[in-house]
Amino acid sequence: MDYKKLAMEKHYEWAGKIEIKSRAEVNTPDDLSIAYTPGVAEPCLAIKEDPELVWKLTRRHNTVAVVTDGSAILGLGNIGPEAGMPVMEGKCVLFKEFGDVDAIPLCVRSQDPDEIVKAVSLLAGSFGGINLEDICAPTCFEVEEKLKKCCDIPIFHDDQHGTAVVVLSGIRNALKLTGKRPEDCVVAMSGAGAAGTAIAKLLLKAGFKDITLSNIDGVITADKEYDDPYLAELASITNPQRKSGTLADIVKGADIFIGVSAPGILTADMIRTMAKDPIIFAMANPVPEVMPDVAKEAGVFVIATGRSDYPNQINNVLAFPGIFRGALDVRASDINDEMKLAAADAISALVTEEDLKNGIIIPSAFNKSVVKDIAKAVADAAIKSGVARYIPE
Amino acid sequence: MDYKKLAMEKHYEWAGKIEIKSRAEVNTPDDLSIAYTPGVAEPCLAIKEDPELVWKLTRRHNTVAVVTDGSAILGLGNIGPEAGMPVMEGKCVLFKEFGDVDAIPLCVRSQDPDEIVKAVSLLAGSFGGINLEDICAPTCFEVEEKLKKCCDIPIFHDDQHGTAVVVLSGIRNALKLTGKRPEDCVVAMSGAGAAGTAIAKLLLKAGFKDITLSNIDGVITADKEYDDPYLAELASITNPQRKSGTLADIVKGADIFIGVSAPGILTADMIRTMAKDPIIFAMANPVPEVMPDVAKEAGVFVIATGRSDYPNQINNVLAFPGIFRGALDVRASDINDEMKLAAADAISALVTEEDLKNGIIIPSAFNKSVVKDIAKAVADAAIKSGVARYIPE
Repeated sequence: MDYKKLAMEKHYEWAGKIEIKSRAEVNTPDDLSIAYTPGVAEPCLAIKEDPELVWKLTRRHNTVAVVTDGSAILGLGNIGPEAGMPVMEGKCVLFKEFGDVDAIPLCVRSQDPDEIVKAVSLLAGSFGGINLEDICAPTCFEVEEKLKKCCDIPIFHDDQHGTAVVVLSGIRNALKLTGKRPEDCVVAMSGAGAAGTAIAKLLLKAGFKDITLSNIDGVITADKEYDDPYLAELASITNPQRKSGTLADIVKGADIFIGVSAPGILTADMIRTMAKDPIIFAMANPVPEVMPDVAKEAGVFVIATGRSDYPNQINNVLAFPGIFRGALDVRASDINDEMKLAAADAISALVTEEDLKNGIIIPSAFNKSVVKDIAKAVADAAIKSGVARYIPE
Repeated sequence: MDYKKLAMEKHYEWAGKIEIKSRAEVNTPDDLSIAYTPGVAEPCLAIKEDPELVWKLTRRHNTVAVVTDGSAILGLGNIGPEAGMPVMEGKCVLFKEFGDVDAIPLCVRSQDPDEIVKAVSLLAGSFGGINLEDICAPTCFEVEEKLKKCCDIPIFHDDQHGTAVVVLSGIRNALKLTGKRPEDCVVAMSGAGAAGTAIAKLLLKAGFKDITLSNIDGVITADKEYDDPYLAELASITNPQRKSGTLADIVKGADIFIGVSAPGILTADMIRTMAKDPIIFAMANPVPEVMPDVAKEAGVFVIATGRSDYPNQINNVLAFPGIFRGALDVRASDINDEMKLAAADAISALVTEEDLKNGIIIPSAFNKSVVKDIAKAVADAAIKSGVARYIPE
């Protein structure tokens, strides 16, 4: 299929992938008096009296903003806020179609973290959550951190946390196949940007102990000094053996390779230096760090990529619709680590024994149970961890 | 009908009056590859190459933000941004149902003009227009003025300009009945806030010469000094006879009274001091400056109010859907005076000779021609005045 040609044709035909739908009919003057003035004064006054009623009397309970500054759109780089809009609208389509979440695309005409934070925080009262999208590192870390401090709703950078949740879910299933335990695994990672950082942190929360990352400047280690405070923090919590050198040095002996970096940088020779039954998550897009057939030939036990034309696609659409569905269902004030871990568990559990035997470690995004199961797990975790404002009956 | 009770019931039932609708189907992995990654990269790159394509490949061409700071919600005053959301959602319903415009409610958690301007201007690339709503004077003037300078899309404060357009259209028709010419009329106005200021300015653009306003502090005149620069400007362009005193002083001998102020302040005795065939627009809500039956008894020729239970309701829903429809249709960069005057003309023209004879000077908002005729007139005026970016075939 020629995606490029078809995508252009369909985008012209759609003339925008989302629109507003009215839930109120306005066919008569009476309708007008109920949905608008004078009747609408009543719900306004009710919210003024009891601010929590905004969650019942308006759409805030189901509405998420999808926010970008256009600095890291797909694999296309810094193409600017407006050029990123087709991706944001696409994300909103997926939010609605998969999670029944009403998502609104907002592109911000600034790449200054404080300006992004200011604009989004001033609008937080209009939404039940904020999904940050395609914002480059380290801006994304700063924006997320600052927004979490000043907003009363979940702030979730999908490129970080959505990816991390799906990767963790897949690795859990892969380990079922190899019989290894997280705490015994040596993990080598390529790429220490938004996704890499979040994956490393979530794996640590999930019980992994020995994770080492490398980027274009070599292995990340506490033995080096970093101007970037986020890299410095990463160095302080990973690489317990203080390894140095390049990717090849940390891949040697590793049980798991996770790539969120560049095409083809993992060679068959490097794979042959890994531990027994190596697990490879090669997620560079569209060309992975190693192609699945090359990896298989080099003896890889199980491989996942970002591609839809191979099995085990690491696709964020598996995670974010269910995570936000669950968070919104309990009016969560945050999407915390407990909720992310619960989401990863729920995704893992959707892969059957039968699938596992065939090397399938990731469920299909079109499996109807995905969103439902994740949402339930995330909502429960929100309640248990004390960030739910509402407990459904 | 008990609007209060019904409105609360329906607002609970709706649980939000708008939602997102997807225009793209996502039922298969192929659908996903076209609406989202990897296919979506193509429209993104096309917009990067030619920024104008954002108007064709995304929903920007049909999307308006409805923005409030919650400072002047309906007649309820400063009830805050979230309590204003039912009104904003209601406005979005009307935008869609009457104008097929996709409108998104944004409540801003600040009443500082510069913060509102910053937040809105940073998001302007996501929208084809901004409708400011229920922002108090003089904040609304400053916000509108500053946004017009820094945004490439129309900025329209409906409480000002929507009201002004409908009032002008009604007055034009009323004058057809009395046979008087705009330039010969003496106009007395009560209320010099957002609506009053905009009405006075639009009437001046439409050929009226002798307009005098009063507010709670008395008649606005260039003989007084004002701290508020917007009142000072108003004083400099109105009240050519340098009248002083209170409302009663300027009503005496006036051909037209326009009230956007407080209930019951225009008495039958005051009306009896007006010129022959007086025209009264008494728009205080829900109780007008004078009730229609009192006015009729005092000899008023034609009266309009803000109420739906009397003839000639001055209702903004007559204007904003068509004005934005027309502006969006030609991707206008502004909604200027020429476009507002064209809208008023189009509304006036929708009242038939037959209606006029019965004292009807305002068409019904449910007249299907309203939006179509206004949109055409506004789009034509945008093209003629040089603010259209696109000329439909």
